[in-house]
Amino acid sequence: MAVRRNLLLLSNSTLHPSGYLEYAAEYICEFLRSRKVEEVLFVPYALRDQDGYAAKARSVFESWGFRLSSVHESENPALAVANAQAIFIGGGNTFQLLNNLYENKLIDVIRKRVLESGIPYIGSSAGTNVSTVSINTTNDMPIVFPPSFTALGLVPFNINPHFIDTDPNSTHKGETREERILQYHEIPGTPPVLALREGSILKVEGDKAMLIGKFHARLFVPGKKTEEFPTGHNFSFLL
Amino acid sequence: MAVRRNLLLLSNSTLHPSGYLEYAAEYICEFLRSRKVEEVLFVPYALRDQDGYAAKARSVFESWGFRLSSVHESENPALAVANAQAIFIGGGNTFQLLNNLYENKLIDVIRKRVLESGIPYIGSSAGTNVSTVSINTTNDMPIVFPPSFTALGLVPFNINPHFIDTDPNSTHKGETREERILQYHEIPGTPPVLALREGSILKVEGDKAMLIGKFHARLFVPGKKTEEFPTGHNFSFLL
Ligand SMILES: [Ca+2]
Ligand SMILES: [Ca+2]
Repeated sequence: MAVRRNLLLLSNSTLHPSGYLEYAAEYICEFLRSRKVEEVLFVPYALRDQDGYAAKARSVFESWGFRLSSVHESENPALAVANAQAIFIGGGNTFQLLNNLYENKLIDVIRKRVLESGIPYIGSSAGTNVSTVSINTTNDMPIVFPPSFTALGLVPFNINPHFIDTDPNSTHKGETREERILQYHEIPGTPPVLALREGSILKVEGDKAMLIGKFHARLFVPGKKTEEFPTGHNFSFLL
Repeated sequence: MAVRRNLLLLSNSTLHPSGYLEYAAEYICEFLRSRKVEEVLFVPYALRDQDGYAAKARSVFESWGFRLSSVHESENPALAVANAQAIFIGGGNTFQLLNNLYENKLIDVIRKRVLESGIPYIGSSAGTNVSTVSINTTNDMPIVFPPSFTALGLVPFNINPHFIDTDPNSTHKGETREERILQYHEIPGTPPVLALREGSILKVEGDKAMLIGKFHARLFVPGKKTEEFPTGHNFSFLL
């Protein structure tokens, strides 16, 4: 049986110099409308001001003609997920987000809704990190200690959002992003890492994965040479 | 009873454009010689190529007239720490480093040797992160999952090494370093964070802490305005 999976995985929420989610508006609207979604369940767990975060997301989704409810406003978050038409997990701190998903016991229920019922899932930044195998390739600061780095596993690889190329003129001696991902791959058994630059989106439908947005993406596979792939590229081989 | 603590905490190992540890050579040599140290125990756990890492550290310390043994060459790492005249923990990946310290059961034995026997401790980058309360303010990618983020606790605050100022011209939408530390401080009960730019060193002797090296440091205290302090500043109030 094919996996019933509908994912729109954004590298980032805001692309300079446009407003919140503006650069991705046409993709998000088409993704939701073509699936007859009228209301989106928002997960604001990556930030601490969840009321403020939900209000910001609500105003954008309402301006596009969708209703938005926030899981943090629900007495029973698992039930809210069970009844959701679609889920949007926003960015912020990935550790905080994953920790809150575990604390609210939402890992299994989200995975089931997305992989078995096939409800549309939109992730942005940290919300994209948690859709993958693990949060081992987040860029965030580990401000809270989650019970595990294992994430939703909606795809069998990891993503590095906000990927940034090495600046050849930098004198800073912290590891470059490329070095960090290569160090991750020194560990046996680690999955491929798809690095998405800001403005890039991965769209996954069942067993098809396609890069959309404006930019190339960089693929890291353990034991192989790192490769660049253009927008429009078919990444289904990763599934 | 005063704490018997002798720490030299480096923000980084290499300062552009000089060689490995070169910028800190005079501080390290004075720190060890004034304490009659002849041999240093090196902890190469932050990188995977521990043989190569130990060889690199050995050649530098030998060029200064010290012997260097590496804890990973010892059959009994805890015994090596118990017999060490001084400890140097090098940089790399902070998660890998802390995980290896836990796996080799070295947390308590290092803490005891440094805080009770007063043996000199040098940390660089990740080796500075693990000397503090926790690794919550590392910049590294979480490539391995340690059993805890709690670290050696040789000082009662956290450090952010490789601190980098916000570039006002950047269009990148990942969090700035400043934003990351402020998000950490939104969590109740978090300790102060001393942000050390590359080239800065904190020297701690008993209940005295002094900033040395070339640059200002930035102090984040929950609920207070972030402040800059010049090199030479007395940070003993943090102890
Ligand atoms: Ca983030
Ligand atoms: Ca590092």
